[in-house]
Amino acid sequence: MNFNLNFNDIAENYLFAEVADRVAKYTKTHPDKKIIKLGIGDVTLPLVPSVIKALHEGVEDMSKSQTFKGYGPYEGYDFLRENILAYYNKMGVNLALDEIFVSDGAKSDLGNILDIFSKDNVVLVPDPVYPVYVDTNIMAGRKIIFANATEKNGFLPMPDYKVHADIIYICSPNNPTGACYNKTQLKEWVDYANKNNAVILYDAAYECFVSDGSLARSIFQIEGAETCAIEFCSFSKMAGFTGTRCGYTVVPKKLVKDGFSANKTWLRRQATKFNGVPYIVQKGASAVFTEEGMKEIKQNLAYYMENAKTIAECMDELGIWYTGGKNSPYIWLKCPKGMGSWQFFDYLLENAQVVGTPGAGFGKNGEGYFRLTAFGSKEATKEAVERIKKLLK
Amino acid sequence: MNFNLNFNDIAENYLFAEVADRVAKYTKTHPDKKIIKLGIGDVTLPLVPSVIKALHEGVEDMSKSQTFKGYGPYEGYDFLRENILAYYNKMGVNLALDEIFVSDGAKSDLGNILDIFSKDNVVLVPDPVYPVYVDTNIMAGRKIIFANATEKNGFLPMPDYKVHADIIYICSPNNPTGACYNKTQLKEWVDYANKNNAVILYDAAYECFVSDGSLARSIFQIEGAETCAIEFCSFSKMAGFTGTRCGYTVVPKKLVKDGFSANKTWLRRQATKFNGVPYIVQKGASAVFTEEGMKEIKQNLAYYMENAKTIAECMDELGIWYTGGKNSPYIWLKCPKGMGSWQFFDYLLENAQVVGTPGAGFGKNGEGYFRLTAFGSKEATKEAVERIKKLLK
Repeated sequence: MNFNLNFNDIAENYLFAEVADRVAKYTKTHPDKKIIKLGIGDVTLPLVPSVIKALHEGVEDMSKSQTFKGYGPYEGYDFLRENILAYYNKMGVNLALDEIFVSDGAKSDLGNILDIFSKDNVVLVPDPVYPVYVDTNIMAGRKIIFANATEKNGFLPMPDYKVHADIIYICSPNNPTGACYNKTQLKEWVDYANKNNAVILYDAAYECFVSDGSLARSIFQIEGAETCAIEFCSFSKMAGFTGTRCGYTVVPKKLVKDGFSANKTWLRRQATKFNGVPYIVQKGASAVFTEEGMKEIKQNLAYYMENAKTIAECMDELGIWYTGGKNSPYIWLKCPKGMGSWQFFDYLLENAQVVGTPGAGFGKNGEGYFRLTAFGSKEATKEAVERIKKLLK
Repeated sequence: MNFNLNFNDIAENYLFAEVADRVAKYTKTHPDKKIIKLGIGDVTLPLVPSVIKALHEGVEDMSKSQTFKGYGPYEGYDFLRENILAYYNKMGVNLALDEIFVSDGAKSDLGNILDIFSKDNVVLVPDPVYPVYVDTNIMAGRKIIFANATEKNGFLPMPDYKVHADIIYICSPNNPTGACYNKTQLKEWVDYANKNNAVILYDAAYECFVSDGSLARSIFQIEGAETCAIEFCSFSKMAGFTGTRCGYTVVPKKLVKDGFSANKTWLRRQATKFNGVPYIVQKGASAVFTEEGMKEIKQNLAYYMENAKTIAECMDELGIWYTGGKNSPYIWLKCPKGMGSWQFFDYLLENAQVVGTPGAGFGKNGEGYFRLTAFGSKEATKEAVERIKKLLK
């Protein structure tokens, strides 16, 4: 037996370990200082009452013979998929029910989807990037090329027809940069993909933060996407499901090549390697789409976006260049005074006791940039911003 | 872009569709006949009170800021892993906590584990077999060879040193045959694997049905298994979690080759392609191991095993050869009067209105055999047995 030697080529990502290490060292030598963490990508508000109620109901269903649920459909229960369908309808996207697959999260499906594609495909990934896109493809032995996301293009790289790619990752609103493509820009990517016979793996995990109508919330708002794109969504940020685990993946039936249907192949893959999401969790996720549930999660999203606004306004006031913060919970800022990512990390930790994430941890183009997130408490975010202003003014 | 053409080589499994189709046709022409289904592999009893209580508590935790859980550990919460560790301890197996990985089910992990192995490995699979072992390896393009499970070897094939295999699947108690290896037999497999530098993927999803102490409940009860085996377990049959989704996988730290550690590589895989099992579900699964929880699930298991006994005694009375039924919820019987699998299916449906599963659907060696399961209700099982006796006596 041999192990998969491609694992040798995956870079160990010490980013968050290194962050934790530096914070621990500082805390040890400065036990009296109160540290504020704006580095986290995890939600902090509890699940909303409508979801809690539905989860309890789901548990009750499992306690009685008449309502007990055994193996569920691989692609998810219709009661949830119908709600997702209606959610898309409201943004002007018409899907068929069997184009929607309930998942245990966008991350899992972004990795698992690769099972249906050939090993020989060339993968195009933006830099900086969420490390999962790169690592899952290295594991499978695929060739990866990078699209440079820089200050010059607003961290939104556009297609280059001189370069051929088969699988293209787009995350918009972006993690880590918070940058968000408008519909015209996405149309260029869709055209490129269709002309190159490529597939776009569209990570829409942060779509719920988009309020500007000129920006896309789904790739399927773009004409032609149904023949070249697969979309990955999540309840994680939308409804605080990071520890409850539910998402959905849209695989259009028009995405076909040489008699192969992406939709049918994905269903076959799921039927073979997955047994569906817990019934209880699907009940909870379904409640997100009720009138009351939607009202409640919008309050939570507004809470985080108020934090984002607080941070963005601080950057405006300080004259610091940044992306995100408006249709995204992430603020990606240029380190002031020409500092490097880790230099600014130490500077902020030592002088303001604020913790963020060094951009260099997300790729070479992240050097000199820094990520702050809106997922902290309102009070802590305000306090952090005051400290940053005092330090950098 | 090209799709993964290996999907072309996966046989469409029409087994359960064909079963459903024949039953539907019969029902249409005989609407007055009451059909009893003993073909299902899914549990029917609801979750036990201790688990329900813990699930409700988990939901409550998610409703409050102080107890809310975001992203959890990829490998599962310690509160659950410690209980699993203690469960193994009771059967004389000593594991380390970081050898236990909580999963969303044995099926998922049996497929996902293949990510850590080279594509060039030769896979040995018994025939008849749970189709997932074969299909997941075809998808990845691996060569598959078969070990014949027949009446002659009691559907328990033993290693053949003339054949080299790198990855060996063993399911014991077996699905579909219900046959279960004893410790001496498993030692032979462990020795073969260690000598051939092979890995055993041990599917122990049905271990909870084993009451005979000479039979193995875990491969790690066998000396030497820690250098050659990975074990897959599930709460599905043990605690009725088929729709609640939780299992666990044991990857020993001693399973290493050329500096590669199976344990570390699997953790890297999980960190990249998985985000853990819902906190609520892990809370529920944890309650299985409490004194009260264990008492309750043992009652459920006894209920199913009483059904198995009812069916097995019927076969004894009729003088029909079978495996399983004693330490397994499956009874794998030789079709009487030299009938083929589908022939007997029709015969039983038409003359006793009892539905089972034709053995031919699980592989070529399944032809001429038939699977009945113990997961129905007590009343239905007794009624079915009476009808079978009347028909075949």
